[in-house]
Amino acid sequence: MLPIALTIAGSDSGGGAGIQADLKTFCAYRVFGTSVVTALTAQNTLGVRGVHAVPPSFVRAQLDAVVSDLRPAAVKTGMLGTVAIVEAVAAGIREHALAAYVLDPVMVATSGDRLLDADAESAVLELLVPLCALVTPNLDEAAILTGRRIAGEDDMRRAAEELVARGAGAALIKGGHLEGDAVLDVFFDGLGQRVWTRPRIPSRHTHGTGCTLSAAIAAGLARGAALPQAVEAGLEFVRRAIAGAPGLGSGHGPLDHFAPVPELSTAASPGDTAATRTAR
Amino acid sequence: MLPIALTIAGSDSGGGAGIQADLKTFCAYRVFGTSVVTALTAQNTLGVRGVHAVPPSFVRAQLDAVVSDLRPAAVKTGMLGTVAIVEAVAAGIREHALAAYVLDPVMVATSGDRLLDADAESAVLELLVPLCALVTPNLDEAAILTGRRIAGEDDMRRAAEELVARGAGAALIKGGHLEGDAVLDVFFDGLGQRVWTRPRIPSRHTHGTGCTLSAAIAAGLARGAALPQAVEAGLEFVRRAIAGAPGLGSGHGPLDHFAPVPELSTAASPGDTAATRTAR
Repeated sequence: MLPIALTIAGSDSGGGAGIQADLKTFCAYRVFGTSVVTALTAQNTLGVRGVHAVPPSFVRAQLDAVVSDLRPAAVKTGMLGTVAIVEAVAAGIREHALAAYVLDPVMVATSGDRLLDADAESAVLELLVPLCALVTPNLDEAAILTGRRIAGEDDMRRAAEELVARGAGAALIKGGHLEGDAVLDVFFDGLGQRVWTRPRIPSRHTHGTGCTLSAAIAAGLARGAALPQAVEAGLEFVRRAIAGAPGLGSGHGPLDHFAPVPELSTAASPGDTAATRTAR
Repeated sequence: MLPIALTIAGSDSGGGAGIQADLKTFCAYRVFGTSVVTALTAQNTLGVRGVHAVPPSFVRAQLDAVVSDLRPAAVKTGMLGTVAIVEAVAAGIREHALAAYVLDPVMVATSGDRLLDADAESAVLELLVPLCALVTPNLDEAAILTGRRIAGEDDMRRAAEELVARGAGAALIKGGHLEGDAVLDVFFDGLGQRVWTRPRIPSRHTHGTGCTLSAAIAAGLARGAALPQAVEAGLEFVRRAIAGAPGLGSGHGPLDHFAPVPELSTAASPGDTAATRTAR
């Protein structure tokens, strides 16, 4: 049976982020993609020119239509925009008892455009974090969610622990915005921590990186992978997608969503290009 | 360079039709997909539960954002909904001088739900047909566009000729809804007619067939195929996608968008499973 995944996110007309990046990633993983659109953007690789809000009741109507007929094996959320949509999505996930939920707490786009109202940040923490199997903040988002500055690996470890203490099944703190030649990602699932480090790929084509990663992890879960394995495969998929970016557009261009998906059928093991260590 | 294609259509939350089917088809063809959302639907394989209209000005804003930065090599339109959106899309295609435009004159969904206001039908004929490289009506849509009952191959030939006379670069009249064991599709491009016949595949999983076909043809054009070749490959891709439908949902389920794409690199020739003849 073809696994089904659901993305609940904004629409990026430029095709590199939002539900478009998610659906392309689901395709790469050979998972059937469904989608609940939370907002429309008029957007390209240079930035967001406009946003059309979707009524929270219509967000919920889409969610109900999908899950009552095409129940997803995994779910991700991306841009939610407002408190009312966070509330509608939280209620829908809870009432339908959706599992394998990956929360990408999208707040600001790669271009710098704000994608979540400031007053919705605490709603994400209070309503969505406790429902998720995994939350995937970058450094800025982790700082907002934990109320602390995050300047290095130790801070990232503490932030991951704190988000699990706040109810997340696990947390992946993405260090891509740290200074330095290496990219550091910290994972904690309540049992142990893992840190992945990789050489940084110098590229301006990073539009939709966070969307693509959370979609890839959800797709891995939909395919039946264990969470650490789905995370590791997702990180490697994104690395390949950045490395192969097609160079479209004159700003932050899209990734290569035709990148090969790492093997998911084996038990979790270090990726061939990743340096992995287990701590604590 | 990775070719870019643009779909201007509705969003199907269930993932089998609309921009979702189009983006999945673009992925299958290894074309970079961009999208302008004209309407949101709360929909699954059983039908359309709700429609959220998008303001025509925001449809145009999405179109402008995409084509100014990610200029498409081919375009398709699907569900447009209202006269005002037909007008906005026609103006955008004309002013940006977009080429290789495939017009799928969507009026009614497979489930029977109406997707175009009755008063928008003449706007499609007057504003969009003259802009398109190809129009792809089914029998009901061809009957509405030409004002004539269409009961068989001769009527289909006449309808194709009439739509070309009304300004379309070419017309493909899809005979899937005709009675009988064979499916008959009639193509006319102002020079010659071609008729493809294929055994009918008995299946209730035909949700998004028209979306997928027009997206496949646009993707073939974006990849550089000549129009008759792109049409023939698109028909064969849809045949394979129906044959491989994954059986999801309890109504009209989606196609198999992971179906193999027919070879596009050779000159137009009969598909390996198609009986083709050229007439007139």
